[in-house]
Amino acid sequence: MRVDNRAAGQLRPVKITRNFTSYAEGSVLIECGNTKVICTASVDDKVPRFLKGTRQGWVTAEYSLLPRSTQTRVSREAAKGKQTGRTVEIQRLIGRALRAVVDMEALGERVITLDCDVIQADGGTRTASITGAYVAMVDAVDKIFGGYGKFPVTDFLAAISVGIGEEGPITDLCYVEDSAAVVDMNVIRTGAGNLVEVQGTGEHGTFTRKELNELLDLAEAATDELMAIQRETLGDLANKVGKVYETSTGDGE
Amino acid sequence: MRVDNRAAGQLRPVKITRNFTSYAEGSVLIECGNTKVICTASVDDKVPRFLKGTRQGWVTAEYSLLPRSTQTRVSREAAKGKQTGRTVEIQRLIGRALRAVVDMEALGERVITLDCDVIQADGGTRTASITGAYVAMVDAVDKIFGGYGKFPVTDFLAAISVGIGEEGPITDLCYVEDSAAVVDMNVIRTGAGNLVEVQGTGEHGTFTRKELNELLDLAEAATDELMAIQRETLGDLANKVGKVYETSTGDGE
Amino acid sequence: MRVDNRAAGQLRPVKITRNFTSYAEGSVLIECGNTKVICTASVDDKVPRFLKGTRQGWVTAEYSLLPRSTQTRVSREAAKGKQTGRTVEIQRLIGRALRAVVDMEALGERVITLDCDVIQADGGTRTASITGAYVAMVDAVDKIFGGYGKFPVTDFLAAISVGIGEEGPITDLCYVEDSAAVVDMNVIRTGAGNLVEVQGTGEHGTFTRKELNELLDLAEAATDELMAIQRETLGDLANKVGKVYETSTGDGE
Amino acid sequence: MRVDNRAAGQLRPVKITRNFTSYAEGSVLIECGNTKVICTASVDDKVPRFLKGTRQGWVTAEYSLLPRSTQTRVSREAAKGKQTGRTVEIQRLIGRALRAVVDMEALGERVITLDCDVIQADGGTRTASITGAYVAMVDAVDKIFGGYGKFPVTDFLAAISVGIGEEGPITDLCYVEDSAAVVDMNVIRTGAGNLVEVQGTGEHGTFTRKELNELLDLAEAATDELMAIQRETLGDLANKVGKVYETSTGDGE
Amino acid sequence: MRVDNRAAGQLRPVKITRNFTSYAEGSVLIECGNTKVICTASVDDKVPRFLKGTRQGWVTAEYSLLPRSTQTRVSREAAKGKQTGRTVEIQRLIGRALRAVVDMEALGERVITLDCDVIQADGGTRTASITGAYVAMVDAVDKIFGGYGKFPVTDFLAAISVGIGEEGPITDLCYVEDSAAVVDMNVIRTGAGNLVEVQGTGEHGTFTRKELNELLDLAEAATDELMAIQRETLGDLANKVGKVYETSTGDGE
Amino acid sequence: MRVDNRAAGQLRPVKITRNFTSYAEGSVLIECGNTKVICTASVDDKVPRFLKGTRQGWVTAEYSLLPRSTQTRVSREAAKGKQTGRTVEIQRLIGRALRAVVDMEALGERVITLDCDVIQADGGTRTASITGAYVAMVDAVDKIFGGYGKFPVTDFLAAISVGIGEEGPITDLCYVEDSAAVVDMNVIRTGAGNLVEVQGTGEHGTFTRKELNELLDLAEAATDELMAIQRETLGDLANKVGKVYETSTGDGE
Repeated sequence: MRVDNRAAGQLRPVKITRNFTSYAEGSVLIECGNTKVICTASVDDKVPRFLKGTRQGWVTAEYSLLPRSTQTRVSREAAKGKQTGRTVEIQRLIGRALRAVVDMEALGERVITLDCDVIQADGGTRTASITGAYVAMVDAVDKIFGGYGKFPVTDFLAAISVGIGEEGPITDLCYVEDSAAVVDMNVIRTGAGNLVEVQGTGEHGTFTRKELNELLDLAEAATDELMAIQRETLGDLANKVGKVYETSTGDGE
Repeated sequence: MRVDNRAAGQLRPVKITRNFTSYAEGSVLIECGNTKVICTASVDDKVPRFLKGTRQGWVTAEYSLLPRSTQTRVSREAAKGKQTGRTVEIQRLIGRALRAVVDMEALGERVITLDCDVIQADGGTRTASITGAYVAMVDAVDKIFGGYGKFPVTDFLAAISVGIGEEGPITDLCYVEDSAAVVDMNVIRTGAGNLVEVQGTGEHGTFTRKELNELLDLAEAATDELMAIQRETLGDLANKVGKVYETSTGDGE
Repeated sequence: MRVDNRAAGQLRPVKITRNFTSYAEGSVLIECGNTKVICTASVDDKVPRFLKGTRQGWVTAEYSLLPRSTQTRVSREAAKGKQTGRTVEIQRLIGRALRAVVDMEALGERVITLDCDVIQADGGTRTASITGAYVAMVDAVDKIFGGYGKFPVTDFLAAISVGIGEEGPITDLCYVEDSAAVVDMNVIRTGAGNLVEVQGTGEHGTFTRKELNELLDLAEAATDELMAIQRETLGDLANKVGKVYETSTGDGE
Repeated sequence: MRVDNRAAGQLRPVKITRNFTSYAEGSVLIECGNTKVICTASVDDKVPRFLKGTRQGWVTAEYSLLPRSTQTRVSREAAKGKQTGRTVEIQRLIGRALRAVVDMEALGERVITLDCDVIQADGGTRTASITGAYVAMVDAVDKIFGGYGKFPVTDFLAAISVGIGEEGPITDLCYVEDSAAVVDMNVIRTGAGNLVEVQGTGEHGTFTRKELNELLDLAEAATDELMAIQRETLGDLANKVGKVYETSTGDGE
Repeated sequence: MRVDNRAAGQLRPVKITRNFTSYAEGSVLIECGNTKVICTASVDDKVPRFLKGTRQGWVTAEYSLLPRSTQTRVSREAAKGKQTGRTVEIQRLIGRALRAVVDMEALGERVITLDCDVIQADGGTRTASITGAYVAMVDAVDKIFGGYGKFPVTDFLAAISVGIGEEGPITDLCYVEDSAAVVDMNVIRTGAGNLVEVQGTGEHGTFTRKELNELLDLAEAATDELMAIQRETLGDLANKVGKVYETSTGDGE
Repeated sequence: MRVDNRAAGQLRPVKITRNFTSYAEGSVLIECGNTKVICTASVDDKVPRFLKGTRQGWVTAEYSLLPRSTQTRVSREAAKGKQTGRTVEIQRLIGRALRAVVDMEALGERVITLDCDVIQADGGTRTASITGAYVAMVDAVDKIFGGYGKFPVTDFLAAISVGIGEEGPITDLCYVEDSAAVVDMNVIRTGAGNLVEVQGTGEHGTFTRKELNELLDLAEAATDELMAIQRETLGDLANKVGKVYETSTGDGE
């Protein structure tokens, strides 16, 4: 029996609220059980030097835990003057994941920054950040999309943590389960069913090929479910993902 | 006429939600119009060296803007490795203000840290932080209060910004008004009607003694109103503020 | 009775020495009793990016305590690699104050940096810094003033600390008085008699409107006195402050 | 055809030199083709506070590129005052991997620090670091091993990078191949054949379950080969790995 | 002819003012021509961990240029968050030099910190710092000297810069001469006539053994002269340097 | 008798291996007894702002100890986020020394960076770095030398440490000797026999003019010997040092 009575492959309740704050081009609150993350997507037309003249864009991410998002207060990184190794690792992962479903030429010379600020942490904050940031990013891209040519977001994308607990493989580990898990794996997958990233770690043990495959089976089911929720949340906007709009051919243009 | 049709002395709608997140001893979301701040109060029994053996506690604060709490994204201080002068100034103000209504001996050898994280900024974030952090602090103090002796929070406390706009003194400036104000003043006041801090600055001009007094009149009315809201939000708990409980002398206890 | 036998409203002896060091465009040693601050004003024609093309200048300030300006040695901020919150707050205050009496268009695209280095600290270092930096700034501005049009410094400016001691309101607190004061207030005023900044803090208590007004009365008298000393120190140069020189229209020019 | 004519599953020539420098408890130069890493293992009996009294040890790692280990000089992190995200991520990975084959109780209250300094980088520096650091660690552990009870290193451990190049899955990518790979995967495995870490990333594309399995097949063969080389390099010492020595029971003890 | 008409071996006018500020155990203003440095010596009984229980003391130094001590304003190191290489090198030199004439056992478990803050820089700031800090240190040591046993300062110490200018070897280079010198050398010498440190650098050329000896001749004469000035400045206190006081043997003690 | 049976003026065995790593324009491993340093020279055509348009180049150096190059592991500076004073001082010395034998106009608008990474430290790391970096620099300069005009390296250059041990002056101190030496001196000399830098320090005592001269005698012999080794190592390339090639005037070129 899991700590919150879920079945092995069962997600915690997921809720994605769009337009959570007012100023960002995309702003989402994603809640996966008690894990809650504010994900905003900001568009900046001033690109860094390495992009100038390339006609290509970039997607980058930053991640942070609010000091009291956790059971025990963690030090504020701005006050310490340094991001922890964990933070750096997570924000590199988020950026890399989302770039996998963005066509940088279609995006044009702009930078999209995804800010994932965890206001409450109960396990799976990095995967919730990716799943939520995806929705914020689609909203932001839609605001700058001219209406013809390729929509810069090319596919759906969701992430989930799976792991091997005391009674075998389980999906969407909460903090208590995560602390006890022998193996912990984060899987990121696209709407087309392909893998973008697989990070499996034997935190308190090792794992076999067979176990790896069982975990991937759980992850596939979970990410399919999460992408269905993303699709529903986005409504009509979901249809633009991956689409190419014919260039207008009307007279005089 | 003000930008949002308010009267000169009128507050924006204020909403204080207690228990906004689950782990902190006190957790509040305060909304003043479009300004929204998560205020948490964390209790730590491990005191810094300067407090050891003093039988006294301490109250400290940290403040941060989420990168996209603002119209244009601001750099994340953790990423830059440095807090701005503005941040440092504000968090010093918040800590100083709240210490004014805490009896450090009654608190005992503990540190209360108030984290004020602005998720949406439309002017008045530092005063909203103080007004909200107060409520979070009362909740946190109540969790550690033994039930007899002096309740460590000795009085109510609220803060407001007032300023001189184009058409004279106004209360609770939103961002647009704040940018245009000739004079900007933050006032912090206690339930007893006394002043804790008055910070008036001629950002784009100077001001007279007469104007200073008009601003203080507005601030008094506004902080009274805010303290009424705090009182209502706290419900029964409001009665503990400033109270001394007789040491229990009953049989069997 | 005050610790040094002064009357409640009496300033400590003030001495302002111009041209204290040789290289800065303005260089002043200000002594207020045992508080001694070297204030230099440096003019830089290379403006930061945000000023380029605006035809406007800027005034900024930096502040520091020499490690052994105090009773007990304080760590050197350069060695720690970080300025304290107190330092940051003070240098923001000094810059803001002095900008209140500078016409940025008349100054033109230049930056004036005011360095206030405290060599001996006995209370009131921030207000002494402002009063001294003002004189250094006038000297520096005079060196770059072309002789016609508006003199960029538009008015006099002085600052004083006042506070509520054990026996009531007092002016120009020395360190011992400052440590014991219930309320501490810094007031910055112009030659025209207007307020630029009022910062009153109940460090060890709160204060009433009546007390606030008594403190302001003391501050007005003290800043008038300080501005008389500035005027005397500046000699003929004092007359340029606030003046507009007619553009020469003579033949042949 | 691969750039250096290797077969798809073929390793570059591997050479492990023990006792490369004199002072470290373990010191190894590992060469994998043109990738060369100095790995040292240092034993410290002064443990950090979180270990005191636990009777357990810890293994940690640091990683660095010498500035001119690369085609174009990279900035020295010590000069910039900051480790890059890539460095932080890699050293976390190395430490986590090696901890998987250390029995912390058998190690006792000591810290082993693995320093991996890349003197020449041609792809696969993180996996070469792990494979080389393993040998240095066994040497260091042997120096402190008392000769009875459990040898603190419980199994062999090696790491390899595999990826999907233009012509399909390949093993041990050099820099040119790595830059062009669609998918890049690092696999860490134990002598028992179990997985410790699997990190697959679609840098320039996504990948299928089938491709993931082909990559794991290659990685299994390669890590087996690497562990054979480790075993040969360690000679007799290899036999101690994973062994428990009976406590001496002789008279008088 | 030298820029200020001095003879080749002639010092600039030297003035040492004791008790320049009030709080430090030793406080000196040293003026060597236009070079002016405030040197304070602070005594701290709280020693760092490496000294605890050793019955030995330590002497350390910090050095700083005030931002406008120079022709062109230099950035404040505290604001940049980093000391320059030049600063670090100079403060290491000052500390090392002064330790050469202190008996650490006689000093006892205390740290003396020498702060050298340059308020005006016209060449030779590091040597002026050493010569001035020496006097401040003797004053500070005298304050803690119990009156019997070895006086912790064992000899006199002075430093001078010499160099090879256009017309040959010269003493005590001002900034203009220093910038043009082919060779620059700092020499630190004791009252006994021995060398403590010789640092000769061919900034714009190389130098011969013969030139080195000519420079040392100049330096010997100059440091003798400086030590005579130190002796005169210290008055009676000069006699304590290097002296051992017989332990009192009087009755009743 | 010296610890390793050397004669007073005898160098440890010196070995210089060119092309030690593959990517740098110059790459040398220098071994002086147990002291081993990797010295690389990197050429960068992107010059810093202060060189732009000057038609002059620059030579700079960085120095680092690998954490376990020493008996006891030293903290990694990149991890601490700060270079020690010792490191800063040494890399300034290396850069300054090598600039003494480079004609910056002949070099043209390029920067040569010398990286000296100590992999094993047994005394004399800074002088070994200079002697080794010289060879790497000649190799790098040769790669960019057009074949006519002045070869940018104008003379040979070597450095040695000498000192006064228990039994008098000695050459090339190993760590044990260095720790015990009363006086420590680093001498840098050119092929022409001139001095570039002399840094003598009385670490545990002072020294006389006579001793200084004895040390310089030893240093002259040792640097001559080191320059013979450099010359031999460089082979034909040694002949280019200090040479001016006539500009080709032939037809058709």
